[in-house]
Amino acid sequence: VAGAEVVIATGGLGPTADDLTREAAADALGLSLHRDASILDSLRARFASFGREMAPVNEQQADVLDGAEVLPNRRGTAPGQHVRVDGRHLFLLPGPPREMEPMYEEHVRPRLEAAAGGRVLLVRVLKIAAMGESDVEERIAPLYRTYANPRTTILGGPGQVELHLTAGGASRAEALARLDELGAGIRGLLPGRVFSEDGSELNEVVGRLLLDRGVTLAAAESCTGGLLTSRLTDVPGASAFLDRTFVTYSNRAKTEMLGVDPAVLERAGAVSEECARAMAEGALGRSGAAAAVAVTGIAGPSGGTPEKPVGLVFVAVEGAAGRALRRAQLPGDRRRVRWQATQLALELLRRGLLGLDAG
Amino acid sequence: VAGAEVVIATGGLGPTADDLTREAAADALGLSLHRDASILDSLRARFASFGREMAPVNEQQADVLDGAEVLPNRRGTAPGQHVRVDGRHLFLLPGPPREMEPMYEEHVRPRLEAAAGGRVLLVRVLKIAAMGESDVEERIAPLYRTYANPRTTILGGPGQVELHLTAGGASRAEALARLDELGAGIRGLLPGRVFSEDGSELNEVVGRLLLDRGVTLAAAESCTGGLLTSRLTDVPGASAFLDRTFVTYSNRAKTEMLGVDPAVLERAGAVSEECARAMAEGALGRSGAAAAVAVTGIAGPSGGTPEKPVGLVFVAVEGAAGRALRRAQLPGDRRRVRWQATQLALELLRRGLLGLDAG
Repeated sequence: VAGAEVVIATGGLGPTADDLTREAAADALGLSLHRDASILDSLRARFASFGREMAPVNEQQADVLDGAEVLPNRRGTAPGQHVRVDGRHLFLLPGPPREMEPMYEEHVRPRLEAAAGGRVLLVRVLKIAAMGESDVEERIAPLYRTYANPRTTILGGPGQVELHLTAGGASRAEALARLDELGAGIRGLLPGRVFSEDGSELNEVVGRLLLDRGVTLAAAESCTGGLLTSRLTDVPGASAFLDRTFVTYSNRAKTEMLGVDPAVLERAGAVSEECARAMAEGALGRSGAAAAVAVTGIAGPSGGTPEKPVGLVFVAVEGAAGRALRRAQLPGDRRRVRWQATQLALELLRRGLLGLDAG
Repeated sequence: VAGAEVVIATGGLGPTADDLTREAAADALGLSLHRDASILDSLRARFASFGREMAPVNEQQADVLDGAEVLPNRRGTAPGQHVRVDGRHLFLLPGPPREMEPMYEEHVRPRLEAAAGGRVLLVRVLKIAAMGESDVEERIAPLYRTYANPRTTILGGPGQVELHLTAGGASRAEALARLDELGAGIRGLLPGRVFSEDGSELNEVVGRLLLDRGVTLAAAESCTGGLLTSRLTDVPGASAFLDRTFVTYSNRAKTEMLGVDPAVLERAGAVSEECARAMAEGALGRSGAAAAVAVTGIAGPSGGTPEKPVGLVFVAVEGAAGRALRRAQLPGDRRRVRWQATQLALELLRRGLLGLDAG
């Protein structure tokens, strides 16, 4: 426990021979264990409630570190323990998340907050889609660099940039106010670009917008091959906003399913502004949906040409989510290109549904 | 380095101030560093080949542990190092995978093999889809438990079971022969069920089978909402076998896109054997594809009933990949149900393409 003010150990509190956390903690701290009679009683009562006799091996779950406070387990047999040593804290928690998580929330968090004397550290994550890390950095650096608290970390991933704001304060309200102030400043420098501040992902945000506005969607996918629709239907309740999707991988499918004019495919090719537009129009016209989105591009690794290299993608939006068309040259391998193309499509839908310009 | 016979450190060999691996290793081993003139020369030559002068900060990349062997870096500036201390080995490798991986293959692996005096340990992973862990265990336990070498570990995940076979031997050939023997025994107990022994995933195996046999595919997806097609188009070259997919999330889409009789939807419902069959027939008839697969089910979290609970899924296959229909009750949350449904669909396609019964 050298150095740390708080140690939280999870797991190893069960009845079997390899459940050694209690013994290890006693050993490390030079404390003894005693068998707690009231825990024994409640263990036996728990087994009795299932109509079973308790095997003797379970008794070790009633072993408690001298001086420890017992933390009740609402969802399992092994209780947790909390012991203070020289003003520092050791928590022993059960391993199964469904037992550990409520115990943390109900018994550990309040004790940590009390120990911190009201001081808190809060993290808020602002997410931005379809914009490069250096673009974001350039726009917001003059602001966030003037703040020592909150501290800002920029994390760039494919098709998404995350700003992690960490604020300390003498109270929750103070830390929140600091996050709110810098958050508002950042949103001002990136108007309409921050899509999430509560952990939501872009597909969830777009799904919620479609639901809130009662807009139904049809999609037409070529290079993303179902990935865009898969992300949208990953959102529970998607059947209320997703009507249908046409995955038109072959040119013939684009013509037969979406009515894309063979002359467009001949003249401009399947990866073109005109084809993306025609796919979106076809999806809108051939479905009962109010809005449509279409993606076509070259995911690679093969299929690229000097004029149309791997990573070239066109996205079109039509109907009740506005009208937009975007060309992008996306970096990376097949998987990254496909993922970024879905980010771009979702971002265009989001901006259209919010009435923001396509950016 | 206490205890370990081989230590491999990656990263921290570059030119910047936080590239401290060389210094840390020298410190830990009580060795000195010397600046190697021939590395300096090749660093300068590398910069010159880009038409640039080398900044002095780069010189530290020529610092070598006394007694170390220099491992050339084909793809970057910082060379690796290999030093032996009391018969034990320390390797310093660059961090970027594209530099580190070839250096490992070309310079580290041969030295480790030599140090092992020919002894080898090989791992082979056998994968089985759409079958429960306990089912697999029950069938193969009587065999694999009689082997101490290879050792077998069973890992169960959603829709897939992996058997990790680890064989030791005095030579590569001996270890391989042991893997081959147990592998053949296991395949005999699970006829036609092992879909991969080379690391391939099920979507890749099915994609390769479709390509090899020249069979084109159309898919009809309801509850999986594009995930099945997304997995198929994740395979490079998918445009050669995937014709199109109908994601028919609404009942109206099932009727309009696939010609599912509204009377079927009325009588049996969208989640039924009849609907799955009609979707597959519709996908086959309304595309240019030789084979079709259809999935319908209840992914949850809502939409379940006592008769048709969340997790109920029907998969149908039609055409050149055989004719099959499967009902399954899949456990877990929305994401797991969707994933397992795609595993089941891919497995039925695989078995159909191989002419195995649907199992």
